Amino acid sequence: MVAAMDAVGNPSSVHAEGRAAKAVVERARAQVADLVGCLPNQVVFTASATEAAALACDGKGVACSDVEHDAVHEHQFDPLDADQDGTIYCDTVNGNVLAIQAANSETGICQNMARFTDLIEETTSSHFLIDAVQAVGKQRFHAADARADFVLVSAHKFGGPKGAGALCLRDGLDVEALIHGGGQEMGRRAGTENVIGIAGFGAAAEAAKRDVDAGRWDRVEKLRNILESALEAPEYDTIFVGKGAPRLPNTSCILTPGWKGETQVMQMDLAGFAISAGSACSSGKVKASRVLRAMGYSHSEASSAIRVSLGLETTEDDVVRFAEAWSAARKKHKARAA
Amino acid sequence: MVAAMDAVGNPSSVHAEGRAAKAVVERARAQVADLVGCLPNQVVFTASATEAAALACDGKGVACSDVEHDAVHEHQFDPLDADQDGTIYCDTVNGNVLAIQAANSETGICQNMARFTDLIEETTSSHFLIDAVQAVGKQRFHAADARADFVLVSAHKFGGPKGAGALCLRDGLDVEALIHGGGQEMGRRAGTENVIGIAGFGAAAEAAKRDVDAGRWDRVEKLRNILESALEAPEYDTIFVGKGAPRLPNTSCILTPGWKGETQVMQMDLAGFAISAGSACSSGKVKASRVLRAMGYSHSEASSAIRVSLGLETTEDDVVRFAEAWSAARKKHKARAA
Repeated sequence: MVAAMDAVGNPSSVHAEGRAAKAVVERARAQVADLVGCLPNQVVFTASATEAAALACDGKGVACSDVEHDAVHEHQFDPLDADQDGTIYCDTVNGNVLAIQAANSETGICQNMARFTDLIEETTSSHFLIDAVQAVGKQRFHAADARADFVLVSAHKFGGPKGAGALCLRDGLDVEALIHGGGQEMGRRAGTENVIGIAGFGAAAEAAKRDVDAGRWDRVEKLRNILESALEAPEYDTIFVGKGAPRLPNTSCILTPGWKGETQVMQMDLAGFAISAGSACSSGKVKASRVLRAMGYSHSEASSAIRVSLGLETTEDDVVRFAEAWSAARKKHKARAA
Repeated sequence: MVAAMDAVGNPSSVHAEGRAAKAVVERARAQVADLVGCLPNQVVFTASATEAAALACDGKGVACSDVEHDAVHEHQFDPLDADQDGTIYCDTVNGNVLAIQAANSETGICQNMARFTDLIEETTSSHFLIDAVQAVGKQRFHAADARADFVLVSAHKFGGPKGAGALCLRDGLDVEALIHGGGQEMGRRAGTENVIGIAGFGAAAEAAKRDVDAGRWDRVEKLRNILESALEAPEYDTIFVGKGAPRLPNTSCILTPGWKGETQVMQMDLAGFAISAGSACSSGKVKASRVLRAMGYSHSEASSAIRVSLGLETTEDDVVRFAEAWSAARKKHKARAA
């Protein structure tokens, strides 16, 4: 990104400085395509996965469950059911688009995407949207193999900068632009490109693919499991959401009924740990997680949720220190409540 | 921007890392507000001025001339006339929005905004949009004094990064979000913020205000006039668009009928100068400038246009070298044509 700061030209300009900026963007496009499993010309850069969702879904009827992210859920037309292990049910697609998260942002639960790939092959009138924001960069993903028409990705979910996302289109599919003006992104999204952010998006995509291919997340999964073992003592009353289901290697969604998630976030913040209660995008909205409520958890359970995310740099010492800080806070809370 | 790369948190998160990222965004918001002449809570960050135009204009009838940028012109409902010195005419406003460029992107011609401020005060049913993308950061601008309801700005027009823009709203005015999802930007624009780009936007705004206040563009205007003097020899057949009208200090739009603008761009590129033919956003669209055609220039004249932009770092030596390179190419072209 620092190198891209020297690309002062406008990628739409034909002079040397413009061509240099365009080269930065096109290199990143190839890197993102390689990570997502599509061709570079199928990648439409946006400012966020939220914008990518709007670009794919605006004006369409979307079949999706209540466990989807707000950016997709916003477009819900036909609600699909989900159960307590996060499985989404859909027998027939009502709507122009079937939208399924590859992995959930609050719980890390992964869908068995093959079920939907089969379903969509029988439903020729609907498009298949995969919200791969959480999954891409943490597990293998291939848009073409999944027969996705639309794939949403976001740079900051795998080490890239905030403010860079993409809509990846199936080969041959096009979308009507949401933002009109100049001819950028082959007419699909007007506005001068975020060259520096896109450069970071591309570099992060290349690094993320390398890390996934090298199996670097296996170690993180072990650490996550160590964390959950440390917090599952019966006296803590913890529930680990989706523990029996396929999950991302780095996510733990922990319920402790009766102890508000927001309180835990503040207490862990004071102890030096950044965790969240629900998705960051919905912070400020002080209400129980829609995702957990849709999975059948009670209001009290959902209100107590925290999400702990580990990264490739997380150490076992970090996990032990977190478990100690959390356990101490939990004991104090129980003592006060008693 | 490099410092902001350490703000790894999500501005919507409540933990220390989130609050640090939010502080970066809010500092930039105050810097942009100070440059534009509004309050920080009136600044809605977007990925581009194009997106800001869409946020202000989508679904509304816009009265604007054909000299507006594509991002605004896209929303045209009632066409306004312009004449050869760039003056836009409007006696009554038909539509929900009257959109006027403070300065033109291709010619640098500045409108007498007071005329429209008076008009809009009589037209209580319409909103007043000022496309200040080219003007802000090169001349004094004050959104509140101009009684603007909407102001469009773009970071990369005054030294900031590409991919960061803003819609500045009049105090008390709100807009319906174009992109829905999370609650960012007070619900006006969903999607995780481009923290690094916004940091650069803010820093550039602060520097731009300092430069304008210090009169640093006066020197640039003198250089631009030196450039035009050097190229106005009768044998060159040059026309300087808007030379008699108020213009930005750094812009020269030069017509040389019979010599294609794109050819000049390529020849100057080989000589080491980055200029443009028409606006960069419309490059690739190989047609005569809509802006110049709307001002009454012929197809031959409009097709020959180049735009030369000077910056605060431009030296007199740069100008002299450009004039020499351009003059040599012009003589060659005339010799070949003869």
